[in-house]
Amino acid sequence: MTTHAAKSPASRASIGVTGLAVMGRNLARNLARHGHTVALHNRSPQRTRDLVDQFGSEGDFVPTHTAEEFVRALERPRKLVVMVKAGTPTDAVIDEFAPLLEPGDIIIDAGNAHFADTRRREAALRERGLHFVGTGVSGGEEGALHGPSIMPGGSASSYDSLGPLFEDIAAKVDGAPCCTHIGPDGAGHFVKMVHNGIEYSDMQLIAESFDLLRGALGYEPAQIADVFRTWNTGRLDSYLIEITAEVLAHTDPATGAPFVDVVADEAEQKGTGRWTVQNGLELGVPITGIAEATFARSLSGHTELRRAARGLAGPTRSAARGGVSERFADDVEQALYASKVVAYAQGFNQIQAGSAEYGWNVDLGAVAAVWRGGCIIRAKFLDDIRGAYRAEAGLPTLLASGEFRSAVEDAQDAWRSVVSTAVRLGIPTPGFSTALAYYDALRAERLPAALVQGQRDYFGAHTYRRVDRDGSFHTTWAADPRAEHEA
Amino acid sequence: MTTHAAKSPASRASIGVTGLAVMGRNLARNLARHGHTVALHNRSPQRTRDLVDQFGSEGDFVPTHTAEEFVRALERPRKLVVMVKAGTPTDAVIDEFAPLLEPGDIIIDAGNAHFADTRRREAALRERGLHFVGTGVSGGEEGALHGPSIMPGGSASSYDSLGPLFEDIAAKVDGAPCCTHIGPDGAGHFVKMVHNGIEYSDMQLIAESFDLLRGALGYEPAQIADVFRTWNTGRLDSYLIEITAEVLAHTDPATGAPFVDVVADEAEQKGTGRWTVQNGLELGVPITGIAEATFARSLSGHTELRRAARGLAGPTRSAARGGVSERFADDVEQALYASKVVAYAQGFNQIQAGSAEYGWNVDLGAVAAVWRGGCIIRAKFLDDIRGAYRAEAGLPTLLASGEFRSAVEDAQDAWRSVVSTAVRLGIPTPGFSTALAYYDALRAERLPAALVQGQRDYFGAHTYRRVDRDGSFHTTWAADPRAEHEA
Repeated sequence: MTTHAAKSPASRASIGVTGLAVMGRNLARNLARHGHTVALHNRSPQRTRDLVDQFGSEGDFVPTHTAEEFVRALERPRKLVVMVKAGTPTDAVIDEFAPLLEPGDIIIDAGNAHFADTRRREAALRERGLHFVGTGVSGGEEGALHGPSIMPGGSASSYDSLGPLFEDIAAKVDGAPCCTHIGPDGAGHFVKMVHNGIEYSDMQLIAESFDLLRGALGYEPAQIADVFRTWNTGRLDSYLIEITAEVLAHTDPATGAPFVDVVADEAEQKGTGRWTVQNGLELGVPITGIAEATFARSLSGHTELRRAARGLAGPTRSAARGGVSERFADDVEQALYASKVVAYAQGFNQIQAGSAEYGWNVDLGAVAAVWRGGCIIRAKFLDDIRGAYRAEAGLPTLLASGEFRSAVEDAQDAWRSVVSTAVRLGIPTPGFSTALAYYDALRAERLPAALVQGQRDYFGAHTYRRVDRDGSFHTTWAADPRAEHEA
Repeated sequence: MTTHAAKSPASRASIGVTGLAVMGRNLARNLARHGHTVALHNRSPQRTRDLVDQFGSEGDFVPTHTAEEFVRALERPRKLVVMVKAGTPTDAVIDEFAPLLEPGDIIIDAGNAHFADTRRREAALRERGLHFVGTGVSGGEEGALHGPSIMPGGSASSYDSLGPLFEDIAAKVDGAPCCTHIGPDGAGHFVKMVHNGIEYSDMQLIAESFDLLRGALGYEPAQIADVFRTWNTGRLDSYLIEITAEVLAHTDPATGAPFVDVVADEAEQKGTGRWTVQNGLELGVPITGIAEATFARSLSGHTELRRAARGLAGPTRSAARGGVSERFADDVEQALYASKVVAYAQGFNQIQAGSAEYGWNVDLGAVAAVWRGGCIIRAKFLDDIRGAYRAEAGLPTLLASGEFRSAVEDAQDAWRSVVSTAVRLGIPTPGFSTALAYYDALRAERLPAALVQGQRDYFGAHTYRRVDRDGSFHTTWAADPRAEHEA
């Protein structure tokens, strides 16, 4: 820890941003546009110059060229937003700046770090008297500039000075900022990870809906865009439904074909969906919707595998289409809504489990509230989720909560009909199918897991529990004449 | 490295086993029964004494009481089988024995280690001139004694001296031992991990079949046992089907009720299913069958969640049962077979991907061959899988291979009918459903992943590829008047 960086006349910036690629640049501009003085720093100084040249008139920027100069430009406690690539680059920036800081200063990692890395970094910096705030930021480039959803973790005391700045630049819903202190250490990045997992699931369900409307009803993309526009006026009202309509309505200027038909059907991913599922497995939380969505993207990219399987027999869609009525589009809306409730129920259960496992005490209603605006999954129905957790903080599952329960129960006939139709027509709906299987498994009086326990006891002497008395039991199977005994 | 343990008259054991709980004890007995002199060692000497007292007449055992004595008892190159708990205990045993060994000696970890740990240990011991052989052993206690399936990794040269011993004690199928050198370093433990993942999947599919026969046809467990016995005479002939029939036929002596009805319906797991799915995500291999099976076990254990959801509306099984004919049991057999082919196709693709990623050059046909006997998933149809990979080592998917292809194609009508019926009756079949969705996705001409790519480009400027030309493209969405451009 050095002291040469103590407050000087130059220390006039409320916050600084290092890493001025598009996300960092837009966050810095957003802060400046809200009247905050923003120190700027970037490894190569050209980006700093470009920002000031192009956007200098938007607010008060303090361009700096060295780490020392950057740190000196900041008011105490210093707030340094780091917006660099996750992984080694983040550690390099921390190693560069930490020695220049003083106790109470705050390093904010606004990138997409894995929450376990954030926990490690927070613990190491806490030892040195520094705050480390892993912060989820959702909303893409546009969100960063015009109002993202912000999910800061780290110490509660760091939020006292940092929170007001972030709440200023966050998206607003009914006047409330889409930013709250999520919880200690890695809680912010964890919640952002699950946000992205839910996003995968939501996008997969929308993609399946499109595929069903096209495959079962023979609609063209432009017609389907209209269906999504209609849906967007109801309970499905959300950013993802809105942009889906725009994507589907778009015509490729080069060919005049529907845009969606000229795009290669191989979905890519950047890893947060995978992290979410790996963590769900770790915590033992069934997040089947996110898992299927993540694997669906992987599958789409396996071109050699798909080529080898292409000719496999199945119903031809046009031939099988008979028997699907126009009502089917409404059924798909219901199936989509119900499957979406399942996806969110699973995701919120994962946050609940993570919070318990890592001791974060996350307020699930507050998470739903900050997702209502700014982020990719922003949707009207997050307000209902907020309400459900406000009414019962420890709700075991959204599916059992008043209005979701009745909506899903009302939707179930349509949901079953849609999945059956998909199965009959050979249209893959892994997302809809797994959501319905989850619903049916959760509500089952008895699951065939009892048989699995019997098998495990048979081949591995793993023992089982009984429905009618306590204890662990083992049956002596096969030719052995000894009777059941307690293990 | 010490030299005091050089060959002495006492060095007469061909192999040693340390860790004499039931698995280690049975492996040692199996070796002795095959005429090999086996040195014995256990942290607490009582277990060593017990083994000699109870089973000393089975063969030539050399009981030892200290690490030094154990090592001295072994012929060069020494072969030490370590059978202790995975994790820290394994490292502790390695740390204890490695300093007593000489270059060329072989430590064999026959526990269920994670392959990444095995890779780390192998590299560290290789530095010291020692061989480290992570070995999958499947078949449970009985298998260890009477002939397990053995999957050794590690160096090819270690297999020269170790292989003959292991092949001696392995299960035999048509005279061929169920043991082969899988590949370098962690390849053996990796293949064993995927074996266990497939086992999860297979058990889940069997459990769903049971649930369907009961829920849709109203069969009692004893009747369903007969159905499984019949299936076991055909293409489903396998250990798991065989023991399922025995479990279902079993009556609980305490209550006189079917055994499966007194077992708590909360399946447990020991972690290898989870590892398999986490690795599948890492490698980008869609192993949806294993994922659904792993999550189904997790779900079954969430009692609070299930209690909260129990009253959710759905078809009552008995009321809905109408319309299901006796033919349904045959349909379930077809659905089970087809779903099982999918599960194995996915698992073998994971081994293929792991082999490529870690440079192992695993022979998939040889893997199928060693799984034909001794292990939990031993089944007649593994011989067909062996044949498929013998015919085409680089087969992209089992689903595209001659006989599997036609069998699955023939089964698909029944498969669709079974999944539809399950959906209609509200019987959860996540395993059957995901297998069918995988089949339909793999054979699809176009997937809605194209829409996902469009969405990603819209909100995150992630770019997309086109079907009609090379390169990465980005569309300027929303109000921006600029046209499409190459990214």
